[in-house]
Amino acid sequence: MSKIRIGIVGYGNLGRGVELAVRQTPDIELTAVFTRRDPSSLKILTEGVGVYSVDDVASHKDDIDVLILCGGSATDLPVQGPKYAEMFNTIDSFDTHAKIPTYFADVDAAAKKGGNVSVISVGWDPGMFSVQRLYGSCILPEGKDYTFWGKGVSQGHSDAIRRVEGVADGKQYTIPVEAAMEAVRNGEDPELTTRQKHLRECFVVAKEGADKAKIEQEIKNMPNYFADYDTTVHFISQEELDRDHSGIPHGGFVFRTGKTGVNGETRHVIEYSLKLGSNPEFTSSILVAYARAAYKLSKEGAVGAKTVFDIAPAYLSPKSGDELRASML
Amino acid sequence: MSKIRIGIVGYGNLGRGVELAVRQTPDIELTAVFTRRDPSSLKILTEGVGVYSVDDVASHKDDIDVLILCGGSATDLPVQGPKYAEMFNTIDSFDTHAKIPTYFADVDAAAKKGGNVSVISVGWDPGMFSVQRLYGSCILPEGKDYTFWGKGVSQGHSDAIRRVEGVADGKQYTIPVEAAMEAVRNGEDPELTTRQKHLRECFVVAKEGADKAKIEQEIKNMPNYFADYDTTVHFISQEELDRDHSGIPHGGFVFRTGKTGVNGETRHVIEYSLKLGSNPEFTSSILVAYARAAYKLSKEGAVGAKTVFDIAPAYLSPKSGDELRASML
Repeated sequence: MSKIRIGIVGYGNLGRGVELAVRQTPDIELTAVFTRRDPSSLKILTEGVGVYSVDDVASHKDDIDVLILCGGSATDLPVQGPKYAEMFNTIDSFDTHAKIPTYFADVDAAAKKGGNVSVISVGWDPGMFSVQRLYGSCILPEGKDYTFWGKGVSQGHSDAIRRVEGVADGKQYTIPVEAAMEAVRNGEDPELTTRQKHLRECFVVAKEGADKAKIEQEIKNMPNYFADYDTTVHFISQEELDRDHSGIPHGGFVFRTGKTGVNGETRHVIEYSLKLGSNPEFTSSILVAYARAAYKLSKEGAVGAKTVFDIAPAYLSPKSGDELRASML
Repeated sequence: MSKIRIGIVGYGNLGRGVELAVRQTPDIELTAVFTRRDPSSLKILTEGVGVYSVDDVASHKDDIDVLILCGGSATDLPVQGPKYAEMFNTIDSFDTHAKIPTYFADVDAAAKKGGNVSVISVGWDPGMFSVQRLYGSCILPEGKDYTFWGKGVSQGHSDAIRRVEGVADGKQYTIPVEAAMEAVRNGEDPELTTRQKHLRECFVVAKEGADKAKIEQEIKNMPNYFADYDTTVHFISQEELDRDHSGIPHGGFVFRTGKTGVNGETRHVIEYSLKLGSNPEFTSSILVAYARAAYKLSKEGAVGAKTVFDIAPAYLSPKSGDELRASML
């Protein structure tokens, strides 16, 4: 049997993660990597796989079954998503929640025009967390949802720290408040403010001679990013930052708590949690599983944009229905 | 819009749970309850809903969109599943794991013959736990699965206790071993024996004058049910049993632990857990959500047997794709 041929657009953390995830599959192979950098400057892990300019994607139309878009949601995907959906089956991890309906419509129109399947917003949030929220709300219609993130590195908040005057480098961890999660687990249905749900912990390398007290105040009072949270700031050396904080761990929790019975007297708690050694490597593994699904759906004649909500779990697996029922049900 | 019309076959704990779950939905209504008992003797909760003999199911073919089969897996469903799949869209909770492939084939043939959709083995295990195992194994192909059950009442083990000579009544709780789960959470990939995964705790009412030491030994040494476990036996009065152990709580945990990276150096842990105030009420809530899915699939022209693996999450929801993407992704 021939393997499903994957192309990667963008070779950052996510693209490298896709390359690694493909190596764990029996039925998928990497065919090409497309980059904005000079292709000859890019050394990838997999022998014998071509590296091309992102300008040449279209010429590989016949060599690729599914194109995995590994760019960012702010500027890359709004352009790349619709553009490539017209040429290829695609997978992306578009995660700007507020813009998902518009993005879905744009990709859907392009994918239908090209006769392709494009799965958008794949990853763990949006993605697996969304799936859990959906199952939970359908099973326990009279209930509440809670999502907590962390402990993990937030790239957006780390970037925000690094923009503060006097800061040479920095990393920010989002940490869920254990007491809030315990209240949810105990079925207390708490109403939680932003501050009650998450803590923010910052590790900051100050430039020589910088005013640390001023940096700390500026971080803690930064609107949207930190002002609504209890934030701690630790000043450390660049060596310490590199040694102790170079990873990209993340994770989180999705709860659905609900009631059943004649008068809602019976309580249930559903809890889903992730502890991820590497956020991009885990996200990439999900992208690759959904690439398999997109390929199968396309073979069946499906077209248009899809999300994780629209795809039956069996499509993610290399196993047959018989095998799955016998071994995993 | 007309509601999805549900019929219930069998009015035990599960059937009553379905009746309660339907009341929490905006788009589903209960139309009929079928029982093996004398219908005139059965008092149900919902006003204006007919109670009929199970012998009359066929005559209600035009009044019911989905029939939910609430019988047991040992003797009821192997007969009822194929029989009713030929006449109705059906949902059942067939849970004899070893016999699922045969049962699926039987129901599939009948459903195709009748042009219906039949979703088998719906519940939480098989069911939501199976879905979690499937997602986990597809996302982290190089990894391990762990399923723990409890703390909760096992009907099978409670029945086994009550068959012991000298026992008037009894309840058995299956309890997951916390240390084993911690080892899994810590990424230790433990190899666990049956004894290391679960404890069994029994609450027993002895008949007057019965030899309690003999009862305890007989329970603890019972093959299959207790001999492979660390089992504790507590003798209590019937009053205590009725007061403290009349509920049917249950729950459990599904873990997927896996590795990614160049040399498997990155570790991830996915954990899904349920804490259920009532096993049958939670199971019934899942059956009702999948009844909605069966109805939608049937309207789209699908036929044949399905499992939770074959059904996209969006089918479980009363909300539209637009609503789901805007609010839950």
